[in-house]
Formats: sequence, C-alpha cells, structure tokens
Amino acid sequence: MAEPPKEVPTDAVPKPAAPAGEDPAQPSKKGAKKAEAKAKKEAEKARKAAEREAAQASSAAAAAEDLAKDNYGKITHTTKVDAERRHLRDLGEADVGKTIELQAWIQNVRMQGAKMAFLELREEGNWTIQAVVAASPEGKPVSKQMVKWIGGLKLESFVVVEAVVSKPHEPVKSAKVSGYELHIVKTYLVAPAPEMLGLGLAAASRAVGKLDDEEISDAVEGLSITEGTPAASLATHLNNPAIHKRAPVSQAIADIRIEVEELFREYLRARGFKNFHPPSLIGAASEGGANVFKLTYFEKDAYLAQSPQFYKQMEIAGGRKRVFCVGPVFRAENSNTPRHMTEFIGLDLEMEIEKHYHEVMHMLEGVLLYIFRGLAERCKEEIATVRAVYPSEEFLLPAEGKEVRLTFAEGQKLLREEGPPEFANVSDDEDMSTAQEKALGALIRKKYNTDFYVLDKFPIDARPFYAMPDPENPKLTNAYDFFMRGQEILSGGQRLHLPDQLEQCIRAKGLDPNEPGLKNYVDVFRSAGVPPHGGGGIGLDRVVAWYLNLPTVQLVADYPRTPKRLTP
Amino acid sequence: MAEPPKEVPTDAVPKPAAPAGEDPAQPSKKGAKKAEAKAKKEAEKARKAAEREAAQASSAAAAAEDLAKDNYGKITHTTKVDAERRHLRDLGEADVGKTIELQAWIQNVRMQGAKMAFLELREEGNWTIQAVVAASPEGKPVSKQMVKWIGGLKLESFVVVEAVVSKPHEPVKSAKVSGYELHIVKTYLVAPAPEMLGLGLAAASRAVGKLDDEEISDAVEGLSITEGTPAASLATHLNNPAIHKRAPVSQAIADIRIEVEELFREYLRARGFKNFHPPSLIGAASEGGANVFKLTYFEKDAYLAQSPQFYKQMEIAGGRKRVFCVGPVFRAENSNTPRHMTEFIGLDLEMEIEKHYHEVMHMLEGVLLYIFRGLAERCKEEIATVRAVYPSEEFLLPAEGKEVRLTFAEGQKLLREEGPPEFANVSDDEDMSTAQEKALGALIRKKYNTDFYVLDKFPIDARPFYAMPDPENPKLTNAYDFFMRGQEILSGGQRLHLPDQLEQCIRAKGLDPNEPGLKNYVDVFRSAGVPPHGGGGIGLDRVVAWYLNLPTVQLVADYPRTPKRLTP
Repeated sequence: MAEPPKEVPTDAVPKPAAPAGEDPAQPSKKGAKKAEAKAKKEAEKARKAAEREAAQASSAAAAAEDLAKDNYGKITHTTKVDAERRHLRDLGEADVGKTIELQAWIQNVRMQGAKMAFLELREEGNWTIQAVVAASPEGKPVSKQMVKWIGGLKLESFVVVEAVVSKPHEPVKSAKVSGYELHIVKTYLVAPAPEMLGLGLAAASRAVGKLDDEEISDAVEGLSITEGTPAASLATHLNNPAIHKRAPVSQAIADIRIEVEELFREYLRARGFKNFHPPSLIGAASEGGANVFKLTYFEKDAYLAQSPQFYKQMEIAGGRKRVFCVGPVFRAENSNTPRHMTEFIGLDLEMEIEKHYHEVMHMLEGVLLYIFRGLAERCKEEIATVRAVYPSEEFLLPAEGKEVRLTFAEGQKLLREEGPPEFANVSDDEDMSTAQEKALGALIRKKYNTDFYVLDKFPIDARPFYAMPDPENPKLTNAYDFFMRGQEILSGGQRLHLPDQLEQCIRAKGLDPNEPGLKNYVDVFRSAGVPPHGGGGIGLDRVVAWYLNLPTVQLVADYPRTPKRLTP
Repeated sequence: MAEPPKEVPTDAVPKPAAPAGEDPAQPSKKGAKKAEAKAKKEAEKARKAAEREAAQASSAAAAAEDLAKDNYGKITHTTKVDAERRHLRDLGEADVGKTIELQAWIQNVRMQGAKMAFLELREEGNWTIQAVVAASPEGKPVSKQMVKWIGGLKLESFVVVEAVVSKPHEPVKSAKVSGYELHIVKTYLVAPAPEMLGLGLAAASRAVGKLDDEEISDAVEGLSITEGTPAASLATHLNNPAIHKRAPVSQAIADIRIEVEELFREYLRARGFKNFHPPSLIGAASEGGANVFKLTYFEKDAYLAQSPQFYKQMEIAGGRKRVFCVGPVFRAENSNTPRHMTEFIGLDLEMEIEKHYHEVMHMLEGVLLYIFRGLAERCKEEIATVRAVYPSEEFLLPAEGKEVRLTFAEGQKLLREEGPPEFANVSDDEDMSTAQEKALGALIRKKYNTDFYVLDKFPIDARPFYAMPDPENPKLTNAYDFFMRGQEILSGGQRLHLPDQLEQCIRAKGLDPNEPGLKNYVDVFRSAGVPPHGGGGIGLDRVVAWYLNLPTVQLVADYPRTPKRLTP
C-alpha cells in the first residue's frame, strides 16, 4: 500500500546544480589531490541527489495515483470546505442525506481492515457522534490512503470534516448523538495531538485517585473519593489542563459554577443590589496584617486584599443601599486542605439595615436557597454527570418557611447533649472546630432533614473586630455563619457603623486603631454619617464543592491556587 | 430659650456625700491648721456640689418641660419607631396624610426663626424630599427644643424620621420628590457627621477642578474639564470617598458602569459564551516579564497577571467553544495619564473560529454596539446627570450594517492624505501614537459620522507574539483595535494555535520560548490539538470614560489604582 503524501521538508530539497560557466572538475595548479577528493565527493553528492530525485518522482507518482489526495491532509489557508457548518447539538431529521461541515476533536479512531475506519468525534460539552470513513471502489472521494491517514490520527487532534449525515441501522449507544452518524468525505487536520497524551480523556473523565499528600487526611473525612480504581491523581489532572478540562465531568462542574454565580447576580439585581469592584491592590494590610500577600508597588509596599469587607462598607458609606461584588480574594495562609486556596472567588454582599440585622441574614438565606433551587432546575443534566463520577447524596433543603436557624449556643447545646462523647463539654464562648461543625451538621441533618442551616449570635471572641456586639449581651454578636453539609460556606453579620465604637472594638482585639489600614477604615466612618448595615461573604468554590460533595475545592476553581500550586 | 437636653457626662456627676458615722469636721490632734484648711476646702466642695445639684434640678425641670423629649435625640437599641418604613422613590398619592418612617441623610437644614426648620433629606441615588419640623403650640409632638436640636444636626448625618406625608402648596423644585413634603414628628440621629466635611456634597457634585499634576497635560488634550469654577481637585474627591460617592454624578457614572458590564454578560451568555475566572496569581511572568508586579509566595516568586490572555486560550484548549471573563488585571507601568491605571477591570472574550477570524471581530463589534445601544435605552437619566456635570457631544454610532472597518493601512493613508501636516509621512508598518489615533478619530467622525470604528490588519511589529500573521502577507496580522472617539478601547485578533509556529514567533520577538512562563504556555498547545481561535479584551473603565467623554478613567473605577494612589 502506498504511503500517504507527506510534506517534503525543505532541508531534503537537492541543492541546485552548479551554474553553467564554472567547471568544478577543472583543478587549480595547487592541491591536485585535494581537487580529486573534492571531485569524488561532488560525484557522490550528485549520485545521492539523483537518487533522491528518483525517490521523489516515485513518491509523486504514488501521490498521483491517490485520487482522494485533495480530500485529506494538513489544513492550509487555501483549503476549501464549502459544506454548511453545523454543530452536533443542532442535528435533526432534516439533515439526513445532507453534506455538512463539522469541526471536532478525535475522541477515538480505529481501523476496520485496510479500507474502513470508525471515529468518535466530539464537540464542546461531550457532544459526540460516530463517523465512518470507507474507501470508495473508484478511489474517490475516499481512497485507501486517506483511510489509512485518518486511522493514524492521534486522539484529541482537532479536525475539520465534510460528511454526509446518515441514520445508523441502530442507535449508536456510545455516542451522545446516537440517532445519526457521519459518512466522511473529507478530513483535514487542523491541530495535531501528541503521540502520547499526558492524561487520557478516559482517565480525565474518572474521579481523581489521590489528592496531594498533605491533603489526604482531611479529604477522607467524610468526603467521597473513588478508591481502588486506576485513576489519575489530582496533580496529574491539574498538570494537564487541556485534557482535564475536556472531560465531561470537568465541564459539568464548571457549568454548575457558572450557574451559581449567575443565580447570585440575578437574585440580587432583582432586589436593587448594585454591583461594584473592590480593589485587589491595597495600600495597607487590614484585619491585623496576618496571612496577607505583600508586594513592591513602585517605591511603596502594597498588599493583596483578603476580602472586600472594608470596600463593601465604603460603598454603604458612599450612599449605596445595597451592593454586591464577585471577584478574587487572597489568603497567604499555608493551609493544605481540601477547603483552602490562596486565591478564590468571593460572592459578597452588603446592605443597609432598616429595622433588624436579620434582614441581612434572610437576604443571604434567600440568595442561597435561590441558588440551590435554581441549580436543581437548570443543571439537572450537569449534576447527574458529576454524580456519575463523584456519587453524593441529594443536598437536602429546608421547606419554604421552615429554614433552620439556631443560635450558636443552641448548636453547642445540641452537640453537648446529642453529639459524640468528645464534644460533651464544648463551650458557648469559643469558636467551633471543623470536626465539631461536621458533627453538628450530621445532627441537624438527622433532626431537621436539611443540609443547609444558619448558626446565629456567634460569641464575640470568634468574630473580627468589626462585628456588632449584641446590644443586649456584649459577649455575643449580631453575626452568623451558614453551613452546607456541616461545612461553613458563609460568614456574615451586622457591622459597627459608629467610629468611636469601632475604635474601641479594634483596641479590644489587641489591635492599634492608628495603624494605617485601620485608621483609613475608621476615618471613613468619621467623615460622614454611615447607616447601620450588614452583609456576608460566600466562597463560590466551596458552595459548588459542598453542594456536589466533591473531594476538594480544587476540582471547582478554574485555575486552583494553593501554597504548592501556582500553575498552570 | 431653654437649652436642648444634653446627656450629662459622667465626670460631671457630683460625688456622693460622705457616709454617716464619719465627721469630717472632727480634727485630729496633729495638724489643726491643716484640718482647718481641709474643712474649708470641704465646705467649698459642698457648696459647689449644692450649686451643681441646683443647676441639675433646674435642667431636669427644663427637660421635664420638654414634652417632646422622647421624639428626638440619639437613637439607641430601645428606640421605637413604629410607622411603616417607606422609600422616597415609592411615595404616591395614597401616602398623603399617612405617617411613615424614613431613613435618610441630611442634605440640608436651616432654621426659620426659633420654632421651625426646613430640611432636605436624601436617600440613595439622589432621591431628595423637603421636610419641615415646626414646634407644636402645646409642646408635643414637637417642642422648640426639638426644632433647635434638629437645626443643629450636621450635614450628611444619617437620621431616622417619622413624618406625615403632605402635599406642598406648590411643587418643591429643589427636591427630586417635588410633589410631596414631610411634616416631621420624630427624628433620631443614627450616625453623626463631623462638624466640617472634608468635601461638601455640593463640591462633590461638580466636575473635578484639576487632575493630578503629571496628568494634566494629557487630560486637556481634547477632554472636557470645567475650568474656572471653584471645584475640588480629583485628589480631594478620591480622598473623601464617602462624600465623593454620594454625589449624584458619581452614582450615575457607577450605574452606567454596572450596566456596561451587565450588557456585556447578557449578550455573550445569549450566544453560548461560558464565564470563567482566570487566576490573578501566576507562577511565571508571561508576555516577556516587563511591567509585572512580583510578590513572594511562600518560598517562591509569584506575579500578578497582566491579562487573562493565556487562560482564555487555555479554556479553548480545554474544550470550550466560547468563553468570557470579567476581572482585575494588573500593570506595573509607571504611566500617569488619564488613560492608565495599575489595576483595572477587563472584559475579555475568546472563541473558536469556524471559517474566518472576522467572526471574532464581528462578535466584538456586536457586543460593543449592544452595550452602546443598551446604555442609550437603559441609562438615559444617568447619562443626562453626567452630562450636566461633564458636558459631552452625543456618542455617534454607525447605522446597522454600516459599521466602519478600515485596515490599518487605510487608516494611515487617510491620516497622510487628509490629516494634520505632521502626519503626512506616517508609516504602514509602525504602531500609531496617541496623537495619531485622535487625529484619525476626528477624520473618521467627519467622514463616516461615527465615534466607533475598527482598524484591522495591524502590522506584525505592533502586535504581541501570539498574534496570527496574515497568511497572505507576513508583515501583517489577523489582529485589530477598536476605537471610541479616537481612543483605543479594545485589542484583539486571531491567536496562534500551533505550538511550532508559536515558538517561532516567540523567538522572532526576541523572547525565549524556554523561559518558564512561555514554555508552560506553548506546552498547552503541544499537549492536545487546539482549534483556531481569537478574541479581544476591553477596558471597562475606558469604555465608560470615553462614552461619556470624562476627563479621566479614575472617575469611573470604583477604587482607582495608579502609581501614586493605593487608597482608599
């Protein structure tokens, strides 16, 4: 069988013959021996060139025999594909018998003898179709050479094909578009894949086998990892972003994440919230200065904002009734757990309080319930795709009007009285550990049949300086956390809005209100009257991860950043 | 007239009388003289205490006479305001005669004799109303003391009032809610403003008087600044964020900016674009490493992303057909002009190309025209508010189907032939200067009646290494810039998608493809076949600034960052 045509590399082109008028065989007086050797060399060279020319001619003849030679090969800017461009999701009965153009990845290809090959072609979001290419008896539009060339294409190469839409004898179960198949008449290689993929799509489509070492202990605490399968590690997934992202499960997670953000925006815009963009670069570390990234900013120091907290409040000071923002926040915290990243997307809101700080708590509950109900409605298919890889129990929601809101003290009491024995003495004045939170989550699920609930009235020692103390009990605050499956996903509450009280609370936390970051902050409240207000911040990746019960937030972030990972 | 009641400071409280059983007049044997002096002192002390008691009693009597004393003062958590809470934008005829609650800023207050005061109250977005407080003949619900207290409230304090909605004799022209006025029955101070504001609302509501020094020369080039008025400088505005942001013009600019982002999202979501979040923290400086912020990341170095370029492309490599992102990008460029910030919000998109890179150009044109038409429809009032402060000519758009698209060479030709004499020799191979761009903008406005146009086919020397060369002319690229009023707001084009060509173009720019940032990038294209694709990036603040012809992008960003400004 003839070889498929190849582009002749330029360094194989024979050198031009010596120009007429010069005689290379005419030796100079000096160095006759040298001249002889040279002549010999030239002769040898000429012989080789002749051989090459002969080989080329034969190969050209072979190519000439390939009547389909224009119907395949590497694409160039002059390649013509004139059929109508279609997408797999749009194919219908009216297309049967038509010739269409499709651009797709080669998900699979196998030769069936020398004259036929089967392909699986894929477009975005796991739209796959079976394609067949068979050599025509007359050698065109498809030749045996063409079939062989297609059979040799590497997986995850990108091609453009021209093909006739047909009905298969029976539905092609392996393809998402099972009711049609394509009969290929042209195939051009647009972008080749390597001989060997760093991560195959099949492996990328399975659950990650192992998290990074330091993380494993945390991750197995009640999180679902498929064990015992020959799966690729999280690191292998993340180090091969092109293939990792092409996996249907990755695309489904990304699609769910998009919808969480969109639902957040929708709900708040409809309620008069105004979007704004807090800065990432700030002139002074706030919130005490721990866990903050520092950089050189021309001749000064700058820091990366750990939260939009102060800026949300400045928006309220600046006359906005309700604001929200979506953007990156940065934590220079050396935490290697499935919950932590050094950069993540925060969904934040802040609003004026009219009568009671629970207005804010109810708004936050409202937006999260809107997100959960919206996901169940809009992302059914994506959720199923994820669950097929990372199995999880249904995320239980409270019935409307039956939201579960406990005070922190009530939560602690429940833990003491009904929780595991190691929590028999938990205190009402100290923050909970992750283990306590999870134990309480399990108790609440059993008792109230919900995976989503609020703990209100946190003790003052567990909150930052800007939290408003409960006016009736200075040991408590008007602040709360929200939980999903026993894991915190939101912190919020009423903030101090009077500068003197703010200064006093800064001092009470052992901080210095004259430190620049804090002074700038307090000064805003001195510069004009600021209404009572409150808000909360939600970690986008955590919401998605805990909703789907994924083993780590690193499977949710588009480009996760951890103490050990800054790439891709 | 009686003084308004004051909280008695605790250090003015008289000391308790000496307990019975001790006789301070009984001297010890030693030091009779001393005892005498002491007795005298004690007597004097007692006399003063008696005086204070008398004064207190009299002041208490005065307070007792204030029958309205519970209807005003500093708010506490036990203060009761039971009327229905309303917002000014919702007031209607049905409210006339009703008692409502309102929370608002004091925009103005003036006494009218001793028994009456007029107030201007303001809610978000310049909703203002006139309020009157007049002492009742019987001393309640409003006393003279109460009127005086209200008259002494500082501008931009935040108050809660209970008031009866009334119809004024004639419309109150100075207020946005001109058809109603409020007759106050209760007023509580929620958050006081300082004696003297750092920037008054009236000044904040006018055009900025002067930009930062280095910027002035650039700013006057054809940009509108109100001159000769006693206006506050840009620095004064930005250093007083609470008041600067409360100005109607600031709120209108922020509202327009919100709508630009929203229109961008709407248009792209409707066309199958998927939102994602590129990282800000990156492990290696890309694009050559100039103008990039560097920071210490645990034991390594990290950098702040100068654009989402590589990540948008990685999304395409990862199997997405169309993506967009909205987020901060960072430039460590010491440029002090009205166009530059060190952190700004980029609106970016990237998409697979099906047949021709103009698909991308048309998509970008489409989204911008959707934004401009959407603004004209949704933000009429806000645009008028801005124009009243920063006058500008209508932003001219091309008629549908009459978009103006010139090649770079055609633009240069126009400049040479019809532009100012200093541009008679501009080259087709070199990028344009800001002055050339503005001159061309003026020519195009005159010739085509549009402020929005595209220059396509930029010379290769004016584009970054990832730009796709024009396959028919290697001196040109498949890349374009978009302009508004002669100023660039978008760069875009087709990108290289084949790793070998990419490496070659990296070398052609004098860069090293083995440098980590570039190697990681090229490796993605080696790791799997990546389809042809293109995109573009839009500076959100510039779009708003040039649409409104504002003197600087710093009036658009929520918290502008420049080489000299990292606060607030």
